Amino acid sequence: MDRPSRSAGTVRPGGRTARVRAAVLEATQDALVEHGFHALSMDQIAARAGVGKTTVYRRWGTPAGLVTDLMNELANQSAPHSDTGGIEGDLRANALMVLEAINDPRLGATFQAVIAAATGDEEAARALRTFYRRRIDEWAAVVDLAVARGELPPGTDGKELIKAVSAPLYYRLVVTREPVTREAALASVDRALAAARAGAFVAETV
Amino acid sequence: MDRPSRSAGTVRPGGRTARVRAAVLEATQDALVEHGFHALSMDQIAARAGVGKTTVYRRWGTPAGLVTDLMNELANQSAPHSDTGGIEGDLRANALMVLEAINDPRLGATFQAVIAAATGDEEAARALRTFYRRRIDEWAAVVDLAVARGELPPGTDGKELIKAVSAPLYYRLVVTREPVTREAALASVDRALAAARAGAFVAETV
Repeated sequence: MDRPSRSAGTVRPGGRTARVRAAVLEATQDALVEHGFHALSMDQIAARAGVGKTTVYRRWGTPAGLVTDLMNELANQSAPHSDTGGIEGDLRANALMVLEAINDPRLGATFQAVIAAATGDEEAARALRTFYRRRIDEWAAVVDLAVARGELPPGTDGKELIKAVSAPLYYRLVVTREPVTREAALASVDRALAAARAGAFVAETV
Repeated sequence: MDRPSRSAGTVRPGGRTARVRAAVLEATQDALVEHGFHALSMDQIAARAGVGKTTVYRRWGTPAGLVTDLMNELANQSAPHSDTGGIEGDLRANALMVLEAINDPRLGATFQAVIAAATGDEEAARALRTFYRRRIDEWAAVVDLAVARGELPPGTDGKELIKAVSAPLYYRLVVTREPVTREAALASVDRALAAARAGAFVAETV
């Protein structure tokens, strides 16, 4: 399997510092999934990870600090963009990856917990923003490749197009609370692509 | 001004029961905006509203029960769909209404608090789902009118098109945590409409 791990606990082995970090991030993700951000306790994370409290406080500071490091690790472990040779294939690969992540019990619950945390905590909001910025930047490259191949109009905004593919899926997940299905993911690609081909993602001032 | 009130506390006056409800919903919204769903306490709501605890427990049962009634009231007070005579005007009216609601300090914070609550509470999730279903159903009518006028292809799915206008705005609000701007709202209309005109919102089996 070449898909990324669904858990931050499988961070690459290294020295003791890396092992401590892996255990702490795994415990953080467990706690987020089970009880949400509001119940996150530094002491419980330390106990769960089998690591001294002092280490956890010194290295991560706050629950939001733990969440920030977790989101960084999840971004590090995420798959690079596809390169199927066509924009439809690449956007489908993107939508299906988002679909899989959202519907993965552990990863989906992690995202939802951090989305909830971000509504009331500026540091969690920053962690969320950084995570999605990294993922969007990574996948925007497939749009640039499509423009270079002549598949999409010059000036098409890759970041906006990648966001347009994901937006309806997250909207269903956290706003309308509808099932996020494969049909919804593929329809999102068809709609975003139709708009892109019509030039609706070309920046006003190129 | 014919825009809907931004606060559930301005529910129409009536008898004592209606006044109690207005006071309790106002206190619920205050508490949600200030401290979020996790800090919602029935006793504090009662005290804040100047209403007996027994009444609050008997009538609303749980914090999620309060949130459900608040969301019902906010849906009742929301504006009916526009009828500008053209689909572009109607979708712009919809997007600008969503924009205004999201950026209204009190209403936007209320939505974010309930979105956060829904990630961990099934009753809050149901309240959220019902609220958006009502709003989407209301505005889907403008798409049916456009199809009848010949502006959009027969079989265009009104609910999906209305959701496609809102999705990028909520995605910015709670996922990528970017500013939700007038430009983003108008771009969302342009993109959804381009896709709709290309037939990308026609249900597979009409």
